[in-house]
Amino acid sequence: MRASVHRFTQRDPGDVTQLAEAIDRGEIDPATIVAFIGKTEGNGLVNDFTRGYLVLSLKLLLSERLGRSPDEIGRSVVFVFSGGTEGVLTPHYTVFCVDRSTPLRAAGPRRLAIGRALTRAPLAEEIGTRAQVALVADAVRRAMAEAGIADGADVHFVQVKGGCVTTEAARAAHARGAVLASADPNRSMAFSRVAGAFGVMLALGDIAEDQVDEANFFSRLDLWSDRASVSSGIEVAENEVVVFGNSPGWQSDFVIGHHVMDDALDLGGAYACLDGLGIDCRGNNRAEALGRIVCALVKCEPDASGLIRGQRHTMWQDGDINAQRHIRAAVGGLLAGVLGDTRLFVSGGAEHQGPPGGGLLALIARVA
Amino acid sequence: MRASVHRFTQRDPGDVTQLAEAIDRGEIDPATIVAFIGKTEGNGLVNDFTRGYLVLSLKLLLSERLGRSPDEIGRSVVFVFSGGTEGVLTPHYTVFCVDRSTPLRAAGPRRLAIGRALTRAPLAEEIGTRAQVALVADAVRRAMAEAGIADGADVHFVQVKGGCVTTEAARAAHARGAVLASADPNRSMAFSRVAGAFGVMLALGDIAEDQVDEANFFSRLDLWSDRASVSSGIEVAENEVVVFGNSPGWQSDFVIGHHVMDDALDLGGAYACLDGLGIDCRGNNRAEALGRIVCALVKCEPDASGLIRGQRHTMWQDGDINAQRHIRAAVGGLLAGVLGDTRLFVSGGAEHQGPPGGGLLALIARVA
Amino acid sequence: MRASVHRFTQRDPGDVTQLAEAIDRGEIDPATIVAFIGKTEGNGLVNDFTRGYLVLSLKLLLSERLGRSPDEIGRSVVFVFSGGTEGVLTPHYTVFCVDRSTPLRAAGPRRLAIGRALTRAPLAEEIGTRAQVALVADAVRRAMAEAGIADGADVHFVQVKGGCVTTEAARAAHARGAVLASADPNRSMAFSRVAGAFGVMLALGDIAEDQVDEANFFSRLDLWSDRASVSSGIEVAENEVVVFGNSPGWQSDFVIGHHVMDDALDLGGAYACLDGLGIDCRGNNRAEALGRIVCALVKCEPDASGLIRGQRHTMWQDGDINAQRHIRAAVGGLLAGVLGDTRLFVSGGAEHQGPPGGGLLALIARVA
Amino acid sequence: MRASVHRFTQRDPGDVTQLAEAIDRGEIDPATIVAFIGKTEGNGLVNDFTRGYLVLSLKLLLSERLGRSPDEIGRSVVFVFSGGTEGVLTPHYTVFCVDRSTPLRAAGPRRLAIGRALTRAPLAEEIGTRAQVALVADAVRRAMAEAGIADGADVHFVQVKGGCVTTEAARAAHARGAVLASADPNRSMAFSRVAGAFGVMLALGDIAEDQVDEANFFSRLDLWSDRASVSSGIEVAENEVVVFGNSPGWQSDFVIGHHVMDDALDLGGAYACLDGLGIDCRGNNRAEALGRIVCALVKCEPDASGLIRGQRHTMWQDGDINAQRHIRAAVGGLLAGVLGDTRLFVSGGAEHQGPPGGGLLALIARVA
Repeated sequence: MRASVHRFTQRDPGDVTQLAEAIDRGEIDPATIVAFIGKTEGNGLVNDFTRGYLVLSLKLLLSERLGRSPDEIGRSVVFVFSGGTEGVLTPHYTVFCVDRSTPLRAAGPRRLAIGRALTRAPLAEEIGTRAQVALVADAVRRAMAEAGIADGADVHFVQVKGGCVTTEAARAAHARGAVLASADPNRSMAFSRVAGAFGVMLALGDIAEDQVDEANFFSRLDLWSDRASVSSGIEVAENEVVVFGNSPGWQSDFVIGHHVMDDALDLGGAYACLDGLGIDCRGNNRAEALGRIVCALVKCEPDASGLIRGQRHTMWQDGDINAQRHIRAAVGGLLAGVLGDTRLFVSGGAEHQGPPGGGLLALIARVA
Repeated sequence: MRASVHRFTQRDPGDVTQLAEAIDRGEIDPATIVAFIGKTEGNGLVNDFTRGYLVLSLKLLLSERLGRSPDEIGRSVVFVFSGGTEGVLTPHYTVFCVDRSTPLRAAGPRRLAIGRALTRAPLAEEIGTRAQVALVADAVRRAMAEAGIADGADVHFVQVKGGCVTTEAARAAHARGAVLASADPNRSMAFSRVAGAFGVMLALGDIAEDQVDEANFFSRLDLWSDRASVSSGIEVAENEVVVFGNSPGWQSDFVIGHHVMDDALDLGGAYACLDGLGIDCRGNNRAEALGRIVCALVKCEPDASGLIRGQRHTMWQDGDINAQRHIRAAVGGLLAGVLGDTRLFVSGGAEHQGPPGGGLLALIARVA
Repeated sequence: MRASVHRFTQRDPGDVTQLAEAIDRGEIDPATIVAFIGKTEGNGLVNDFTRGYLVLSLKLLLSERLGRSPDEIGRSVVFVFSGGTEGVLTPHYTVFCVDRSTPLRAAGPRRLAIGRALTRAPLAEEIGTRAQVALVADAVRRAMAEAGIADGADVHFVQVKGGCVTTEAARAAHARGAVLASADPNRSMAFSRVAGAFGVMLALGDIAEDQVDEANFFSRLDLWSDRASVSSGIEVAENEVVVFGNSPGWQSDFVIGHHVMDDALDLGGAYACLDGLGIDCRGNNRAEALGRIVCALVKCEPDASGLIRGQRHTMWQDGDINAQRHIRAAVGGLLAGVLGDTRLFVSGGAEHQGPPGGGLLALIARVA
Repeated sequence: MRASVHRFTQRDPGDVTQLAEAIDRGEIDPATIVAFIGKTEGNGLVNDFTRGYLVLSLKLLLSERLGRSPDEIGRSVVFVFSGGTEGVLTPHYTVFCVDRSTPLRAAGPRRLAIGRALTRAPLAEEIGTRAQVALVADAVRRAMAEAGIADGADVHFVQVKGGCVTTEAARAAHARGAVLASADPNRSMAFSRVAGAFGVMLALGDIAEDQVDEANFFSRLDLWSDRASVSSGIEVAENEVVVFGNSPGWQSDFVIGHHVMDDALDLGGAYACLDGLGIDCRGNNRAEALGRIVCALVKCEPDASGLIRGQRHTMWQDGDINAQRHIRAAVGGLLAGVLGDTRLFVSGGAEHQGPPGGGLLALIARVA
């Protein structure tokens, strides 16, 4: 098994020409593509249709190149897009391929391993509840199995994408007497993320079954995953899960590392993540070793207390710019400055993903 | 002459309680206040009234404490507020005081020196033209004289605040047959900043008189100041100028340093500025020496080419969030991460202030 | 008792020159001013500081003209400002004066009567609860008494302004163990409005005491007032109440009428309100009789179902523009077109104020 | 020749199920579709990708049903989408079909006639210039010919969709030394609309060739079309033109009428348009005759003077909501109230389309 990682940028959310050209040049075998993770240039909120537009555009491209219907593509490839390239961030998507022509080797240096799984589509009334947690946890376990990873400790990053409740879906649910965690579309996106995070924690053994309690959602701030990254949006119904780890059975040039970020200013956490990959670049974002990084995955959130290191921030009280857009811009600005690269997957909405007010950073790099 | 620097935060743009308390505790003599520079939590665009609200609130406070009318206060104190605390930034204002009870000393270590000046109010048709450049240049020279600085090279930072053309002012100007650099309010804010930057460059000897040509505005990207920071807004009519330098004649614990930022990711420029003040904190924003910093003044702008280090950014094409708000959030996030502090004056609109797509950083610190 | 009504427009939220000039010309005796109701050009959300800026500017003007402190002015005059002049709306404020030199007459044609009252400042944990309902109901009764109106049926419009929970207040409340109806600032604004509406209904006899149940808030959509208009915002702590009615004891040229709007398209409701005042202008907003109108007060809200007359609207799913801003623009556009005037007080957030998805219209006019 | 008109709504910008179902039910023969005109729920500005998303989704549907490639569909069908369903507006699209199985009849009552044409893609440096005017004028003439309309006076509405200059296109143009009317993406959208409006005026004989002068663009406010409606956006390169008229040669139940709107409050203009179609509904938007209307096409703009009927509006100074979004919400609210229907094509950016600060209304209705 051999994973490969390819990063492409876009002119607009319907632009898939760089991938098309890479396929045409023979650099990517489209049949080996297992997942896409990317940032599109919408607002990252309920009415962000750039994610769906890119999904459709990629399905069409693969449909054409593989001679399969777009629907079939949708069932065999995972698409995880997060909207919002605030500040210096660059719209881009990373293509993850798995070459299965070589079987899992018995032993060797730990290398990037990838597994995926889908859940069924949760009902509107399941979003943000224990039912969704169970669906996600099951999918994480299946994705780990696909990756050939038995021990949760070998997992370095789990990306989950889930749906949310639109105004229309809420109306339909109310019409059939269903009770929703939230009928507010934006709020339901947060609920969907929380259920995803609990699902990851449950599957990885970070929490016990009895801690999966809706009363803990948003409130037990000490329950958080250091490896779960969850996005939600109206363009998906199912929960889509991609598990990333390092495994001795896989062969490639790539490894993954991760580190928590204690708060939105956690420069030290970012350098610690780089240290783990053997990249020394403190204060110098033009360091050559930074060129080894091929993918950066970030979760962050506006501190719920309204304070960062004791000083007030205004993100939660801004009626013009959503708080998640603020924090993506700021943390994206910090990490782009650390890494010297703006092609970062920076996703907001980090409830129970990393410590409160902080988040996560995972980096995939070529080995030195 | 002795300068002092005091930084206060706010609950809202009308909140001046921290200054009131400092006056009441005897820590600040209100009669010594010469200037305010701060960030308010508006959008930083034409319809940002948080700047005017804070100016009014401060005038009232000083009026009450000094027994002078708000108008008199307005004539003797400079108020420079920039709107927009995007991302992690904290609404705050810095109070600059000058104790004149000690005369300029003949010699000594270089310490923070401050001078101010006002221009007359430019006409709408003068905004963004050579006439405004001349007004600003004259004010910079007068402010240098007030600071006792004869050589432009001793100046480390010049803050200018100017007016802009509102829809109403444009209508009035058109009615009298005047031709405007721009009748668009947001665009006129940019014109006002450019004229200010050229005024500073002219006064400091960075450009020659014949380079003050409106054809060069926005186009001669090689003409930029490494020390000019210009804001504009509807709450002022005059141009207000504050010059900061280090001078052997002044006595205090404070010094100022500055450095350009080559682009929005210029981590190295930020650390170079810190190096100049003897603060070593690469990769560690909890370093004790960072506590010496009492004021951080930043200018930045979205790269006009649409690229940062060769990668696309989306700031200029966003119809929902103004480009200046994006860049403040991103550069504010980076520098807050470097400095471990969110109380930064980060101002967008850096046309001809720092290199294209980059900007400036000035730091005032206590001596070690 | 004689009420008078004066409408002024603004160049910006700190502009009170039209009132100053009217006072200087002797048209308004500042000592007779009892209330201001107006629209400022902020976003109408939590971080709308234009309301506070105008309050401060008016207090200063009256302080100067009456020789009383701004705080004293604040205790004797009611300031109700609603942010948001979306679409065609004009920033303006209406000044309500009461000349008490003539006592209530025994009988006569019904004319405009005005009464006011303030509550104490509710605690953060009281906002959006029965405690706030009780405070408002009591204030409405006191305002009716001040207006000399004994029967709730003689009341035509009740304007309430209340506070909300800022991030800072929520933090303080949580620190002392208090439970909040909502810690989300925008959501707390809605809670504050609902409690205000229930308070008005209780005082006017529209609901029984046992219907004042928090379980009914936002859910019992059949409980709504046809005369309550409630705004909330961070610039006030107390609840401020102004009651408008027609009373035979009052003498002036003014009368007030009101009508519900069944939905956001209720053109018929608007014309019914005009009919009540004897103004016939169907399809002709240049009709001379429309010149009799001196004040238009409107409440509206985005239909919670996501549908208007069976068709989808997108207001609730827009992450860039708040739903209340959308509806103010649309209903403001409709009523400005009906009345031929853009100086309308159009306020969103009409929970339990008018039928669901609809609202209220009250017009004050000179008698024919 | 027989035209038909079908209006469908959407759950999201990628939703084309209503059309798919109508095709499946045999109500629409997809081979007869000549044009789509619709409103999508984006921001209507440069970064509105909902238009492109809908175009792609419709091309795919027709590709599947007609067995032709999406590119072929794109060459034979015109897609005109305008973003922005502010306020009460409903995302929807109208499908225009032409059944050519019956030839043009010699005489008969005037009925809806439709013609279309495409231009080549203008270069970035042609956008907003006389070159683009010439391209559009030529396309209008060809579309009239396709519709069998010889006399410009028989044309009632001309819809033009054109491209704009993205940041990337501007960079490329500058690299080859080209001079642009504007390199600012939003501004270039306005230039593209102006050139389109002049093209329509030229083709319809409303202006003389020598009035097609770039110096007149935006400035000669007396030069405006009462029938041109121009949209622009990043999702098209060519200019697409659809001409609507009434012609004795065409057979159907449909007729079209139009009227100018003098300003954003022009209720009378709207009723005059309805009068022209024999629909009497003044003050009653539930009138049965309104059910005859199948399509409403509206152009409007924020008055450039900053005033509406002498009162200030704030649309141009709002840094949070673009002026075009404001005016669409307001005029959409007014006309939805007049017509009792929210499925309106309300498009901003009416430079030289209708009188300054006003616009146009065209209604397609079944004959009584």
